[in-house]
This record gives sequence, structure tokens and C-alpha cells, in this order.
Amino acid sequence: MSHPINVVVWGEFRHEKKNPKVAAIYPDGMHETIAAFLRREADMEVSTAWLDQAEHGLTIERLAKTDVLVWWGHMAHGEVQDEIVQRVKTRVLEGMGLVVLHSGHYAKIFKALLGTTCSLKWRESTDKERLWNVNPSHPITSGIGEYFEIPAEEMYGEPFGIPAPDELIFISWFTGGEVFRSGATWQRGNGRIFYFRPGHETYPAYHQAEVQRVITNGVRWARATVRIPDDCPNSPALEPLPSDPEAADRSVTGHR
Amino acid sequence: MSHPINVVVWGEFRHEKKNPKVAAIYPDGMHETIAAFLRREADMEVSTAWLDQAEHGLTIERLAKTDVLVWWGHMAHGEVQDEIVQRVKTRVLEGMGLVVLHSGHYAKIFKALLGTTCSLKWRESTDKERLWNVNPSHPITSGIGEYFEIPAEEMYGEPFGIPAPDELIFISWFTGGEVFRSGATWQRGNGRIFYFRPGHETYPAYHQAEVQRVITNGVRWARATVRIPDDCPNSPALEPLPSDPEAADRSVTGHR
Amino acid sequence: MSHPINVVVWGEFRHEKKNPKVAAIYPDGMHETIAAFLRREADMEVSTAWLDQAEHGLTIERLAKTDVLVWWGHMAHGEVQDEIVQRVKTRVLEGMGLVVLHSGHYAKIFKALLGTTCSLKWRESTDKERLWNVNPSHPITSGIGEYFEIPAEEMYGEPFGIPAPDELIFISWFTGGEVFRSGATWQRGNGRIFYFRPGHETYPAYHQAEVQRVITNGVRWARATVRIPDDCPNSPALEPLPSDPEAADRSVTGHR
Amino acid sequence: MSHPINVVVWGEFRHEKKNPKVAAIYPDGMHETIAAFLRREADMEVSTAWLDQAEHGLTIERLAKTDVLVWWGHMAHGEVQDEIVQRVKTRVLEGMGLVVLHSGHYAKIFKALLGTTCSLKWRESTDKERLWNVNPSHPITSGIGEYFEIPAEEMYGEPFGIPAPDELIFISWFTGGEVFRSGATWQRGNGRIFYFRPGHETYPAYHQAEVQRVITNGVRWARATVRIPDDCPNSPALEPLPSDPEAADRSVTGHR
Repeated sequence: MSHPINVVVWGEFRHEKKNPKVAAIYPDGMHETIAAFLRREADMEVSTAWLDQAEHGLTIERLAKTDVLVWWGHMAHGEVQDEIVQRVKTRVLEGMGLVVLHSGHYAKIFKALLGTTCSLKWRESTDKERLWNVNPSHPITSGIGEYFEIPAEEMYGEPFGIPAPDELIFISWFTGGEVFRSGATWQRGNGRIFYFRPGHETYPAYHQAEVQRVITNGVRWARATVRIPDDCPNSPALEPLPSDPEAADRSVTGHR
Repeated sequence: MSHPINVVVWGEFRHEKKNPKVAAIYPDGMHETIAAFLRREADMEVSTAWLDQAEHGLTIERLAKTDVLVWWGHMAHGEVQDEIVQRVKTRVLEGMGLVVLHSGHYAKIFKALLGTTCSLKWRESTDKERLWNVNPSHPITSGIGEYFEIPAEEMYGEPFGIPAPDELIFISWFTGGEVFRSGATWQRGNGRIFYFRPGHETYPAYHQAEVQRVITNGVRWARATVRIPDDCPNSPALEPLPSDPEAADRSVTGHR
Repeated sequence: MSHPINVVVWGEFRHEKKNPKVAAIYPDGMHETIAAFLRREADMEVSTAWLDQAEHGLTIERLAKTDVLVWWGHMAHGEVQDEIVQRVKTRVLEGMGLVVLHSGHYAKIFKALLGTTCSLKWRESTDKERLWNVNPSHPITSGIGEYFEIPAEEMYGEPFGIPAPDELIFISWFTGGEVFRSGATWQRGNGRIFYFRPGHETYPAYHQAEVQRVITNGVRWARATVRIPDDCPNSPALEPLPSDPEAADRSVTGHR
Repeated sequence: MSHPINVVVWGEFRHEKKNPKVAAIYPDGMHETIAAFLRREADMEVSTAWLDQAEHGLTIERLAKTDVLVWWGHMAHGEVQDEIVQRVKTRVLEGMGLVVLHSGHYAKIFKALLGTTCSLKWRESTDKERLWNVNPSHPITSGIGEYFEIPAEEMYGEPFGIPAPDELIFISWFTGGEVFRSGATWQRGNGRIFYFRPGHETYPAYHQAEVQRVITNGVRWARATVRIPDDCPNSPALEPLPSDPEAADRSVTGHR
């Protein structure tokens, strides 16, 4: 585990160009804000990619070297090419980590890996979010206490259309009366996936220390440890087999 | 739970037409053999469908009435239309049960719901399979003792590229030295999925009493109880919200 | 599944005798209120037991015939004899269902089966509880919509010191800002366990229709299907073994 | 994570004194063989403890400083004092790691944390064991390929009376026809538990490189990251509560 963690932060980078309110909060784009705090970590090498780049910035060569991909998308999920989605999926199943943020719950790559609708309730209003830490010894909550608050955020509410998480990390309370599984992990193939709820584009969540800490922890937790390509081998026997099965003396019995 | 379980048994129905050995074992097709033993159950109404029918026999109207779909495919996975796969997936996420058999591990519908490679080791030889029941109080193993044997079967071996099952039901031992998670369940959305390993087309597994019992139990366990269409609603607050969030007195604090 | 479900509702039955407020809400005891609504179900035969009976009403003979035990205790957990706790635990591991209510999170039997502290936050005040249904196709939530509310209840808050549930059923929102995993299941041995949060003795939760419905569903879900006594057998080989292991030709190899 | 991992290897240390065959394989005791290979790791500080020491070598002060406890016991489980078992359990729930080996499946501490019978099938004969790695990206299988073999070992067979593991790591194949979940993890409270099957006292498993590698990986994976004492606090509200609940305007409604 001596080489640095090669992190690519992928942002849709559209709201920032169209909505002055978003541009005011994230003048270089949300992906650059996220990359900036990850770059403070000595064990990470961080670059960015976005939708309007060739191949969305996710070439085969680049993904092959990526340990963890961080994903934020929202208004343009449909523009992500299916071929690139499949390419990312293959890498996750081989072992690459994936951290999916906020509205990325509806990204093609998240839905393809989880297999479910990933639907939820939502409201843009004046809710406060309080994220309760329900897994206080998990590496992703290192440095986070029993809870932390985000003073203003979009509400996401249950039911959340996900498979039961392998590990539940945070449950959110919202002023308006809802709850949400706002931090959760899944292993898919050899890759680790972490979904983390905060980060609507019109609120400054990625400037908040606790949010930065959780994402940083999540990247470190998700780092790739192996690269195991897909295979479905015809496999010779490891033990002697009967040469003629029909002649073999086989008792076919159930047993209580 | 008073209406009968509406079961559709879907078979690829190709090997039976091309390979006399398979036709000898399953003269009416594998799907008809499976349907025949399910039809003995008083609480089931069973019909069949196959690949070469229009819409593969899986129209929107028919799926809407289906409680459990049983799936066997092998040599022609690629011919199943993506639109029909999506249609079946939608119904599973709404609540329809799905029982996937043997080489169906590589069916598009199984991979789309699980999100992983679903790869495995395999060998067509003279192995015996012994299926150990590791969940003896589960409804799927009702009437099955500690284990049962299939005298000759294709070998499937680990690693099996699936997400960790919600429930592990059977682990198989093979003569040649391999093991396999040969019975497993997952919930996806509102639907229940049961994968059961036995049933290579050149062996008579679906004529064996224990195999029939497990599939029958699996269909009953997977029956739909709800139909909940996908939805991602904008949702009004259930509790009073502050009218002006920036003026609100909000203490933003982590704790402990 | 033709015989009725034999249900025993166990209540501590102490608060009702000491606190007039509790006696006013549950004049015959909390256990009798719970038993009364279960007795309306045609498939259940319901009796009650309480702490101050001989053997706490839980003789070996009675437990042997019990399919599901419902447990409410609070102020006198320490008076439950360890021998009876072990007796109940043995029956759960054999297959008996167990429904644990509210302050039963600290019952000896619950802690013995789960192995953890089962601690939580709590507050007796003027909170409202809203229970969100996060598993809408689960039999335990049959007939319950997206959520229901209890107008006044004791608050229980995370972190809740339980092992990760096999199935998460409800997450509660409380007025005061907390969340809680308020419905959860675990399988232990051959028995099914359902924990359901509501029911502080000074509030009338067990008179509320939704609470009654969930408990009724929970009892039905938890019903025993097997009775498998503990065993750790010396077991003869099912396949031929080498007669002299040191002479056997064994290749000891790892494999990539 | 800069301080060394403080590891205590606990051995029963009885077979070695009574059975010359065992003494020949493990002349300094099994615990010393295990400690010896762990001591080769630069990030571990390793000491040993055994049954016949005062307080079984597990004083409060020593456990308070222990990051991971490795446990091997067999013939004298009943002699481990309940008070010490409770002490170890408390530390695991606070965050200490626990690696349980082989016949430790029946140790009081393992059964107390898991809550089940932990029973299994067994046979001392001439079986070979082949451990299949079903979680190839897990840190515990780092450096282990698809499988490894132990040329002669006691057989352990399913059903294994454990709660469903959080993570399944190895499944074993035995010559005599059985399978076994031979590597599995659970989180209990804030502590991580790893059970690893090999190591009957009359076989030299702890001298085998792959077994040593897995135990070393397991210790590193289980290291304590937090120490969170048990607490069940009365907790003040974080949000305003209605002053008079009976006067409050509360709509008590289920939905949908």
C-alpha cells in the first residue's frame, strides 16, 4: 500500500456554467472544490475529469490507473455514453473504488452497479440535515462524532430504492420530517462503493469540514487493492473423477 | 394471499431442438418439465413462455399479472432483446419474484439485477454434486434434510461473481474438488430473487424429487406481495420549516 | 402451516401495578392489551405469561409448544432468572420466533441472542415519532403505507448498539432531532427475531391500529417452522478417504 | 495508525502438556508458534497469555492496551472464568479486534458475542482441506490466490451454527464430502471478529505459510481503531419540542 492513491474526481460541470448561484459557490466547478481538499492528503494523487471532455475524460488508459473514482452528476445523466458507463463498471468490478455523491444516486453507473431504481423523495427548501453516525468504528466515520449538521440542504427521503447496503454508515434527519440512509457501502465484484448524500449544487456542502472529512475517508476506504479481470474458465478437476459415471456406484440420498 | 400464484416458466427451448441427448431427457422442453411439477401444487397457476415466441412470450400484459417468473437460458442469452430485459427488470423491482436456474447465472436479466459479472468456474465431466443445506429453517429448504446429492451434474465453482447474497441457502461440494454457493437469495426493489444452481441440459436434474421440491419452495417464497411502481417524488414537508433559512438560528455543530 | 400459531405474550407486569398512569392506559396489563388484539387473528392461539409467575410462566413444557414469544420488559430485567433466559434462548435457536418490544432492547434474552450492548439514547418528553417504512414489500409492513406516526412517545436515538440487522424495516424520525432503527430483524440459529421500538408504558402505543398491525404481522412472520435441537456430531465420511494420509500423493499448492 | 498493533495471542496450552504428539508439533505451545510468525511483522507488538496464568493472563490493564486478541482453546473451554469472558466481551464491543481459531468456535467468548450454538460436524481422520477464497479483494485474503490446501486436517462441516457472517471469506472442501464456511467476519459493537477454521492441535497447520498469512492479515484487519465505552444516555432534545403535547396540533396519519 505504498504507492499514492490515484483519485479521479468526475464532475458533470454544467450547473456551474448555467446557474450564477452555483458558480458563486463553486467558481472552478464542484469537481475542483472536491479535488482541492483531497489534494491536501499526502497519500493521494488527484486529478479531475468532466462530461464535456472527450470520452468524458475517462479513457481506458486513465481508468486502468485509477484507484478511486469520485462521481457527481445531476442534470445530464442521460448524456453519459453507455460505452463509458460499461467501461467504468468493468473497472469497479475489477477492483477500482467508486464514491458516488448526492444526485449521483441517479447516475447510470450507480444504477448499473446496484441494479435497482435508486429513487427517493426530494425537496429543495429550507431543511436542515443532521447526519447521525450509526457506525462509529468504521474508517469512513473516523474523526466524525455522533452526528454533524448541514445548516441548509436539499432533502432526500425514504424509501430509497437501493439494495440493502453491506454497511450502513449515516442516517439523516431532516427538519421537514423525513429520514434517509445518507451514507452506505456496497461491494460489487472486487470494488468498493460508497454513496454519500450531501452536495446539492445550490448549497455549499463541499466547503464544510465534516463533509470533506467523510469524502476523504471514503476515498481512502475504497482504494483498489487488486485488479482481477473477468473470467469464466473451464476448469480441470483437482481431484480424481470416476471414469464412467453411469457405472459408478453412487448412492443418491438425502439425509436428515 | 388467497389468489393462486401466477407462475410463468420461461425456457430458452433451443438445446432441446438441436441436441438429441437433451431432447431425450426433456422431450417437451425443459420449461415443460419444470411447469409440470409446479402444476401439481394447488396454490399455483402455471404457464410457459420461450425465446422464439413474439416478445419472447413476455408481453407487458402478461408480466403485469405474473407473480413469479422462472428463468432458464444458456446458449442464446444474447438473443434476448434488451427491451424485454428492461421490462422484466421493472416488474421485479415492482415486486414480481424471479427464480433463476443454472446457466441463467449469465442471463441478461440476472446480471442487470445483480450488477456484477456473475462469472464462475465450470466443467462438464463426471462430477457428483452434494448440496449442503446451510439454512435449514428457511422456507426454501422445507422438506430438504441436511443435504442431497445429484449423481451427475456440470460443475460450477467459486469464485462466483455475485454480490454477497442476502441469504445463503445451499453450498455445493463437487467430486473434482470445488465448492459453490448453489442456492442464494437477494431482494432487489420490492422483488425477491432466488438463484438455484442445478440443471445442465444434458443431465436429468429437473426430474429429481429434491430439485423439484426446492424450485417449488422457491417459487412460493418469491411470490409477489405488492406492486409498487417506480417514483421519485418532490415531496412537501411534513413538519414546519423555517421561512427564511439564512435568518434562522441554526447551531451547526458536530458532537462528542 | 395448517395448525394455529401458538403465541405467548410475556409482560413484566410491574409498572401497571405501581404507576396509576400506566394502569389507566393498560388496566389489565400491557401483555393483555397485546394479547387481545392478537386474539382477533383466526390463525393464532394466544396466551400470556408474566414475571411474577412460577418460572416466569415459561416452563419447559410450555416453551416446547410455543411458536412465537412476544417480550415486553423494562424495570425488572435483572429479576429474570438466568436459567429461564437460557431456556428461552435454546428454544429460539431451535426455531421459536421472538418479538421484542420497546424497552425489551435491554432484556437479558435480547442481549444474549444479539451479543452486543443494545444501548441507545433516550428521552421521555413530548416527542412525536414518525416511523418510515424502508422495506415496503416485507410481510411485516403489509398494510402499512410509507410511514405512520405516533403522536407522543419516548424517544430512542442512534447509535443503537445492535449487530447490523439482517433486514431493516423501519427508521424513526423524532421531533427532537434524532433517528432510530425502530424495526429490524435477525435470524439466530433457526429462529427469527423481530425488534419493534414503540411501546413506552406511559403512552398508549399498543392501542394504536398501526402498531397492532405491525406486531401482528411480526408474529406471523416469526412463526416457527422447524425444531432443530443443538448437535455437534462426529460425522463419518461420505466419500472414500485415503487409508494412510502420510503415504497419499497430495500436492499442496496455492493457485492463482 | 502509526502506533504498532498490540497483539495478545491467547492459547489454552493444555494439549501440548498432555499429548506428546501435540508437543512434538508445537514444543513451546501453539500460542508461541502463532506469536512467532506475527512477531516478524514490523507493525505488530506481540505477547502471549494462557489459561493457567492468573486471570488467564488477561488483566483489565492488559486488555485495555490490547488492539487484537487471538484466541485458541479446545479441551478446557469450561475452565475460562465467566468474569474474564465478560471482560473480553466488553473490550470487543468497545473496539478491540478478536481473531478466533479452529476449536475456538466453542469458546465462551465466541458464543457470547455471536449468540448462537456455534455447533458443527467434525471428524478426525485423513481428510485434505481445500480452502476456496470467495472474497479475493478482501484484505484478509491479500497474497492468497484462488485457493490453498492443507494436506491433513480435522474436518469441520456444515451446518455451522453461526449468524450469517457480515463477510464470507473462505469456503472449505473436504475429501470426505463436506463443505464449511471456514473464514468469516462479524462486527459486534465497535469490534471486528474474524473466525478462521484451521488448526487442530494434532496437525501442523500453524506452520504452513498460507495459514500464517491469513492470520497475519486477519490481525491487521481486526485492529482496534476506537475505544467507545458502553453508554445509554438520557439525551436532551436537539430541536424545539412542543411544550404541551396534548394541546399540540398533531395530525396522526399513515400515508399512501
